[in-house]
Amino acid sequence: MVVSGQDIHVVAGVITAIGPTSAQSLTGDVDAAGLMAMPGFINSHTHAAMTLLRGAVEDVAVESWFNDHIWPIEVNVTADDVQLGTELACAEMIQAGVTSFADHYFHADRAAAAVINSGLRANLGMTFFSSQGPAGLETSASFAADWNDAAGGRITTSLAPHATYTCDDADLSSAAEAARTLGVRVHLHAAETVEQTESSLAARGITPIQVLADTGVLDAGVLIAHGCGIVPDDLALLAPFADRIGVAHCPKTYMKLATNPLTPIDELRSAGIAVGLGTDGPASCNSIDLFENMRLTALAQKFIHRDATRLGVSQALAMAGPESARAIGSSAGRLAVGAPADIILVDLSGLHCQPLHNPLAALVYSARASDVQTTIVDGIPLMVDRELLTVDAAELSARVAARAPQLLDHDPTQSIQTYAP
Amino acid sequence: MVVSGQDIHVVAGVITAIGPTSAQSLTGDVDAAGLMAMPGFINSHTHAAMTLLRGAVEDVAVESWFNDHIWPIEVNVTADDVQLGTELACAEMIQAGVTSFADHYFHADRAAAAVINSGLRANLGMTFFSSQGPAGLETSASFAADWNDAAGGRITTSLAPHATYTCDDADLSSAAEAARTLGVRVHLHAAETVEQTESSLAARGITPIQVLADTGVLDAGVLIAHGCGIVPDDLALLAPFADRIGVAHCPKTYMKLATNPLTPIDELRSAGIAVGLGTDGPASCNSIDLFENMRLTALAQKFIHRDATRLGVSQALAMAGPESARAIGSSAGRLAVGAPADIILVDLSGLHCQPLHNPLAALVYSARASDVQTTIVDGIPLMVDRELLTVDAAELSARVAARAPQLLDHDPTQSIQTYAP
Repeated sequence: MVVSGQDIHVVAGVITAIGPTSAQSLTGDVDAAGLMAMPGFINSHTHAAMTLLRGAVEDVAVESWFNDHIWPIEVNVTADDVQLGTELACAEMIQAGVTSFADHYFHADRAAAAVINSGLRANLGMTFFSSQGPAGLETSASFAADWNDAAGGRITTSLAPHATYTCDDADLSSAAEAARTLGVRVHLHAAETVEQTESSLAARGITPIQVLADTGVLDAGVLIAHGCGIVPDDLALLAPFADRIGVAHCPKTYMKLATNPLTPIDELRSAGIAVGLGTDGPASCNSIDLFENMRLTALAQKFIHRDATRLGVSQALAMAGPESARAIGSSAGRLAVGAPADIILVDLSGLHCQPLHNPLAALVYSARASDVQTTIVDGIPLMVDRELLTVDAAELSARVAARAPQLLDHDPTQSIQTYAP
Repeated sequence: MVVSGQDIHVVAGVITAIGPTSAQSLTGDVDAAGLMAMPGFINSHTHAAMTLLRGAVEDVAVESWFNDHIWPIEVNVTADDVQLGTELACAEMIQAGVTSFADHYFHADRAAAAVINSGLRANLGMTFFSSQGPAGLETSASFAADWNDAAGGRITTSLAPHATYTCDDADLSSAAEAARTLGVRVHLHAAETVEQTESSLAARGITPIQVLADTGVLDAGVLIAHGCGIVPDDLALLAPFADRIGVAHCPKTYMKLATNPLTPIDELRSAGIAVGLGTDGPASCNSIDLFENMRLTALAQKFIHRDATRLGVSQALAMAGPESARAIGSSAGRLAVGAPADIILVDLSGLHCQPLHNPLAALVYSARASDVQTTIVDGIPLMVDRELLTVDAAELSARVAARAPQLLDHDPTQSIQTYAP
């Protein structure tokens, strides 16, 4: 629904009223004349710091992508790099109208520092593998405990085992238990591809989703990244926990890495599971842009189901906002009284959006991230008229340019992990 | 290949030299410091004037899209509308770095007027149906004769029967004959979907491509829009005419209208046929953006073939430039001495492109149409630093906004044609 001539009133980071535009000017007003106000996009799964690897590895199969390139390169990634890469990602997200994101990466405390400085909202998880020994889980759990509700509530946390194929059942059970104790959720990769599901069935006789059920992860509440390998039998396992489960759909990465089929969006939604939109990490998706992933989601669903009526304009927008919020357990994603004031103003006056027969269709099929003029999080403007207010873009670019080439100079015999799901 | 620190010298619309940057400043210089110069994108198939219907019809199946919506609405489209809609499309293309396009629409003389004013390069065809009687073909042929090589060569023409299912064999033969006489090609829709091929086989025992062979259209030279229904047997028919045949691949439209499968790109290329990239008309694709269609082409090929090594970064760029040029029979699409000076300058310094590990990957997977800073056609700057030099955007938007709603107020009992391929 699009309504014209409205003011949005914000007090202490919360929307307190929405009503007809008044001539009265108040301190702190942001001028939205001629712009469309909408809830900020919510990026339900990313590895923000991997901006530093954007474009470094192209046109290779997923096993080689991990084993020959990304995981060996990540041996080089330091805590400083995580803060730097996350700063870059946050700036890019502010420019693209993303107001909150769910992140899964190492050195999450340094990602938190970047989030605090940027002004964005984020759910952060400290990635761990069981190959790290007990320290992995402990670090992830202590991060989740120490940082939950930090930055005035802008930062929340998750327990972040990497995946069902890189963390053993004991660690998954412990992560679930820690999440329950802290009142947070688990965020992990599971059933990323149908091959992973088949591999799990062959090795253990159960699907990755059954692993999550058996280890108490579903009961704790979980954000499942990708879930492209979720099979019909899994839905009955997921449905009882629909109030605390979300799945992040990141179509650009799937298409680029050729992990066909896609997340079974309709089946999950029919089971009551929130399916949000994510970008995945910029090493695979190359841009942290939910306009792009929203559009791809609609296009790909129509295409693979050979049905142009599938996943209409309104549903695409819902997935990028309220559904993504529900998927990550956030109350944002709505322009409504009581909701967090995470608001973007989009300029639909560009020639590429004219004529404006259908503003919602313009958002889904014509608009670009560069059409976002203003990004507000927690009632605080982070970008106005495309001017970043919390980031010095030139200084940040210079730091990134100085560090990035060094990261690629890696030892091919070293790796943080082996991809053998 | 990316080379730094070069000057491109242009005389009378042609690139005369490319060499190391000189400190010498010449009259008419365009400053490209810090920007990537590349050949302008070539849009190998569109219906430019249909910008006026952008977003008017969403989320409906292709038969309904034509029969219940677009073709009834097009009864309202006047010659003035065609000029207006093409003006809008030209402005949008200049902003998106498209320097030439192949257009297929009614009132093509008025599209030509828009092209002349905009400064773009175009191959224009006057659409006709056999249901128009002899006047359809005659108008298309006389347009092709009168306007070929107009505007100092910026405008070339094609004979433009609508499709194999809306034009009879006699008209196709006559169009081919007229094209041969004029030394131009035919531009038409053929084998748009596999259903069309099946329907042709059922009704006539031959494929749409066989129809083109039998009517002399292949021999005359032809730009085939879409060709998603081209089957293996068709390739042997096409191959002997590879020097004069191109196919336009427009993935956003196919995915949106769910016309799966896609153009068989690899099979056509193996047969020596140029496969270019197009946007199709903005009523289906919503934006005239080859960054988007280039990216979708690469993503979709990897995805449908379940092979992340398919259609790499260099091939995607080639399809958007030199392959598109070859598909439409143009000598543009290259930064080379002797080529038309159709050049764009792209800013890859945006945060969404940092770090710049791989500039070509940045173009394919990170950059946006809004990153194009400067667009030059025939040596003449049409946009510099994103300022349009041949179009008054505000005045144009106002004219579009005034007219567009009236177009949708149509009589549902009237239609320009019935879609029953």
